[in-house]
Amino acid sequence: MKNSFYNKILVCCDGSKYSEKAISKACVVAKTFDSELSLIYVVDKSPGLDIFDRKEYLKILRKYGKKVLSKAELITTKNKVKSKSYLKEGKVADEITKFAKKGNYDLIVVGSKGLGAITKFFLGSVSNKLANQSQCSVLIIK
Amino acid sequence: MKNSFYNKILVCCDGSKYSEKAISKACVVAKTFDSELSLIYVVDKSPGLDIFDRKEYLKILRKYGKKVLSKAELITTKNKVKSKSYLKEGKVADEITKFAKKGNYDLIVVGSKGLGAITKFFLGSVSNKLANQSQCSVLIIK
Repeated sequence: MKNSFYNKILVCCDGSKYSEKAISKACVVAKTFDSELSLIYVVDKSPGLDIFDRKEYLKILRKYGKKVLSKAELITTKNKVKSKSYLKEGKVADEITKFAKKGNYDLIVVGSKGLGAITKFFLGSVSNKLANQSQCSVLIIK
Repeated sequence: MKNSFYNKILVCCDGSKYSEKAISKACVVAKTFDSELSLIYVVDKSPGLDIFDRKEYLKILRKYGKKVLSKAELITTKNKVKSKSYLKEGKVADEITKFAKKGNYDLIVVGSKGLGAITKFFLGSVSNKLANQSQCSVLIIK
């Protein structure tokens, strides 16, 4: 069903089981509405990030992000949905909001808790921030 | 399309243009997934509600709630979707969460800002609370 309801869907990935559930659900929505599906992972570069070796940490996070996106793509392939992946860096919710606005996305799909092992100390409540900041609708998957 | 994706959808109504948009969007989702659609309005009885004549105020709010639900039903009828309406009383987000859990709803649809003229001083950020408290997925409509 092609219509203007959800032409472009953006799924936030962080490697958590919650975000993987969000990807699967987003696939159903994308198939139903024949939407374009994109996957995004943001390397958290919040200024508050005070860590012993920031450079090394960001390197690990970039590698982790690529892995997360590969796994995410596997999930969409299993669900017979094509997807594109984007790795960004910055403040997580800000980057996602900016990316969604620039790309004219109609819907952001995000896990309710999210936060993979590596990122859980820094992400905070991304879904809350997205719900507040985003200019498009937000589907929070439980 | 009948499946288990969104069997039961609950839309939060407060008479605002945001909640009316949420109803219209929910109708599209309900039609697509052949879901049961319910409309809920909660008369805000938060303990913090300090007003000159609480009894009179609640009476007005109950009347307002009925009107909001009638208008909401009109929107669903226009969209050719059957719906059921529920008027509840209590703390808004708590009542909605409770109702959704008891009724085994799969999805709560809520406007991103919401808050009609009468209720805007008291509702606070209901969509945020719902996103956090609810056991089912939450779609925040912008």
